[in-house]
Amino acid sequence: MAKEVTSRAENYSQWYNDLALKADLAEQSAVRGCMVIKPYGYAIWEKMQSILDGMFKKTGVQNAYFPLFIPKSFFSREAEHVAGFAKECAVVTHHRLKNDPDGNGVIVDPDARLEEELIVRPTSETIIWSTYKNWVKSWRDLPILCNQWCNVVRWEMRTRLFLRTAEFLWQEGHTAHATAEEAEQEAFRMVNVYADFARNVMALPVIIGHKSPNERFAGALDTLTIEAMMQDGKALQAGTSHFLGQNFAKSFDVQYTDKEGKQQYVWATSWGVSTRLMGALIMAHGDDNGLVLPPALAPIQVVMVPIFKTDEEHAAIMEKFDSLKSALEALGHSVKIDDRDTLRPGFKFAEWELKGVPVRIALGARDLASGTVEVSRRDTLTKETVALEGVEQYIHTLMDAIQKNIYEKALAFRTANIQKCDSWEEFKTEIQNGKFLLCHWDGTVETEQKIKDETKATIRCIPIDSVVCEEEGKDIYSGKPSHRRVVFAISY
Amino acid sequence: MAKEVTSRAENYSQWYNDLALKADLAEQSAVRGCMVIKPYGYAIWEKMQSILDGMFKKTGVQNAYFPLFIPKSFFSREAEHVAGFAKECAVVTHHRLKNDPDGNGVIVDPDARLEEELIVRPTSETIIWSTYKNWVKSWRDLPILCNQWCNVVRWEMRTRLFLRTAEFLWQEGHTAHATAEEAEQEAFRMVNVYADFARNVMALPVIIGHKSPNERFAGALDTLTIEAMMQDGKALQAGTSHFLGQNFAKSFDVQYTDKEGKQQYVWATSWGVSTRLMGALIMAHGDDNGLVLPPALAPIQVVMVPIFKTDEEHAAIMEKFDSLKSALEALGHSVKIDDRDTLRPGFKFAEWELKGVPVRIALGARDLASGTVEVSRRDTLTKETVALEGVEQYIHTLMDAIQKNIYEKALAFRTANIQKCDSWEEFKTEIQNGKFLLCHWDGTVETEQKIKDETKATIRCIPIDSVVCEEEGKDIYSGKPSHRRVVFAISY
Repeated sequence: MAKEVTSRAENYSQWYNDLALKADLAEQSAVRGCMVIKPYGYAIWEKMQSILDGMFKKTGVQNAYFPLFIPKSFFSREAEHVAGFAKECAVVTHHRLKNDPDGNGVIVDPDARLEEELIVRPTSETIIWSTYKNWVKSWRDLPILCNQWCNVVRWEMRTRLFLRTAEFLWQEGHTAHATAEEAEQEAFRMVNVYADFARNVMALPVIIGHKSPNERFAGALDTLTIEAMMQDGKALQAGTSHFLGQNFAKSFDVQYTDKEGKQQYVWATSWGVSTRLMGALIMAHGDDNGLVLPPALAPIQVVMVPIFKTDEEHAAIMEKFDSLKSALEALGHSVKIDDRDTLRPGFKFAEWELKGVPVRIALGARDLASGTVEVSRRDTLTKETVALEGVEQYIHTLMDAIQKNIYEKALAFRTANIQKCDSWEEFKTEIQNGKFLLCHWDGTVETEQKIKDETKATIRCIPIDSVVCEEEGKDIYSGKPSHRRVVFAISY
Repeated sequence: MAKEVTSRAENYSQWYNDLALKADLAEQSAVRGCMVIKPYGYAIWEKMQSILDGMFKKTGVQNAYFPLFIPKSFFSREAEHVAGFAKECAVVTHHRLKNDPDGNGVIVDPDARLEEELIVRPTSETIIWSTYKNWVKSWRDLPILCNQWCNVVRWEMRTRLFLRTAEFLWQEGHTAHATAEEAEQEAFRMVNVYADFARNVMALPVIIGHKSPNERFAGALDTLTIEAMMQDGKALQAGTSHFLGQNFAKSFDVQYTDKEGKQQYVWATSWGVSTRLMGALIMAHGDDNGLVLPPALAPIQVVMVPIFKTDEEHAAIMEKFDSLKSALEALGHSVKIDDRDTLRPGFKFAEWELKGVPVRIALGARDLASGTVEVSRRDTLTKETVALEGVEQYIHTLMDAIQKNIYEKALAFRTANIQKCDSWEEFKTEIQNGKFLLCHWDGTVETEQKIKDETKATIRCIPIDSVVCEEEGKDIYSGKPSHRRVVFAISY
């Protein structure tokens, strides 16, 4: 083995950390809670960005860039919003360092105190809506469909690579509309884009739904979410899209003149996904040998390892590899030839398994003589001997099969671990067994809170696809009447 | 006219600001010194990013991401470095807000003071080299070729959109090498990438050279730069590449075991370009009608404006536009049909001129009847009547001609405004006339400083291409012996 990975059964949490670190995705930095995203991890994030960005633009969204800093007074203008974020803010108070007159190196210059403190953005609704005020005059200026790719900071006390870090990378879309209906449609459109991306690119089955009022974004009238099941049965919120009503428009006085000449407040949405998706990718598909990357996101889709004894054999294999690499690249695949001369094939195999490369090709002198090649799949850990002639087409087709299989496997896992539940005793047991439970809920914050206090389970969403259960019943906890089941789970 | 632009002759500085604002590139935000980059401006920056990123990757560079924050103690470790940046730092001192017990809204929670202050990165050498310490063990781990695209903050007192802002976007490459020679080669390689990008993508003639010791990056042994002439004759530093020697490796104790088993300090480079390039683009090519964008960076390369009276005419023109748009897109061009029904053609013409769209197509009923179309060039403000049949090929070829012409025009301007100068009296006059002066310099910091004090001119670079003048002579100011001319100018 290249590097020892803790097994999932032994310690799921340690397994996750091992994969993130040993597959060279990320590491903790010297700054508390801030991670370094290493080149291999960043290459996956770049693929996510590029694909999502294309999907956003197809819906008419444009990118822009807004300031990193938010004046404290802006931040406070929307009451629920500031309440939601005030406890985890990085605050800039000074703008200069100077040499300590007592010779203790460099200190913060007390004369360079800012008149008003600046908050490092934890999210940008306030600074963006203060900007939109100047952009919106008439109905002709709407809608505004802006997105930004940037860093944000939320001062988390307990951090985990990708899943919860003080600084993380994300995109945040902020749209402005003339009507409530248009804004709601936009919020739905974007959560559907996220679901499409999760399912078809990340190979991640997700449930789309509304958040319960308790779990809404601070300042939203409705939060839509996509929820995914990890291999320990916990839920991971993978993306959210918020209908913000007129809250921010009112806080920042953003009005437009409608076609009748009347002043109206603007309607808003915001929506975002973050580097947390990297965590979802690791946890949904990885196994005890390492990462399992869906081909659509793999920075290297095919790795080729030569197996040889003599220089002649090496030369003949490399020649074959070079032409096969070109053929695969022409079909749109990214290929790496691992010709490092200091490592044995077995070590290389383990390393590329750890890094989740979907397809590995091994070629030795005997294969060459017989006109065959060994093709290994990362997702199933199976090998096949395939004719060298036309192998690029074989791999091209295989790539789709792998993408599909990774999704199907995750879906089968979820299906096996999601169930209706109507008994409180069963609830308490099954929620600890890592199940998603479809239960009746009476719609009150009180019941939700009590269930959380007793079991740590929360309502992940009120589903609107995948597992919708509109039916009459009784709340699992309070016994009060309910019109639909919702998804309960313990979450990251 | 769509929006009034101040002429260059009237007020160059105001003209610049007008273009940035009125062409919808950027605006000041509510946060002192921080700009909002608007969608049209950001689309240009995205093109710059995408092209540069591809050029970096071709040289083997990989992207990664390092923390926004730098602990104060790290920042101080390289003495020259901290001296260079300490006076313009945003300092995070607290991590929480709370409700004011006196009811004055939200205040910084005094109990949430950080043990060690964090600096918002003005550049990332220190945090990156503290990370590289863990990445480098043996010569096999080298070179490391990392780049990041990110935001940085330098607390500037006087700011101007794109040219000097407290927060700006940039890329910073940070490489680690086994030998001084390799690191120096890397620094040269990257400054050449920048020059190639400036010349062939931005249509910006640049002079490559070394900075004088006085103008070096804080902590560098050598700084290479590309310097461009703006239309007011001032110089703009458009990109820099630094050979950092072993300064950061020593500050952060980054050593590797060489092939002989000996411990050696690692050699470093760093190199960056920023959203300042947007300022260069505006100032190098714009005219009194607005932006002039080189086709390689224009978010919209061709805009089509219909001219019609009746619905039938409109329908016929739009049909033609749709097929022409498809034909142009198939040739790789971005096209916009401006079918807004509330604006007159003349207004649209002025707006797209302001926004610098390289080619405008106007089509009316008479043109349709005669099988012709009016094609206007933004760079020359000339119009031609062209046969509709095959006009997409005409435009395809025209695009290259425009790209070339914009470069040639800028080069001719620079050539007309750069001259050798051997008289101090002439120097004082010509430097105020907006010339680049090629002068002998004795190589001392003292002389450079005196010239700067008397005239505001600085040594922009000791050129290594374009205008190299290796020859014996006497310093323009001190009269001491000199071996080459250097470039003096007043700079942004």
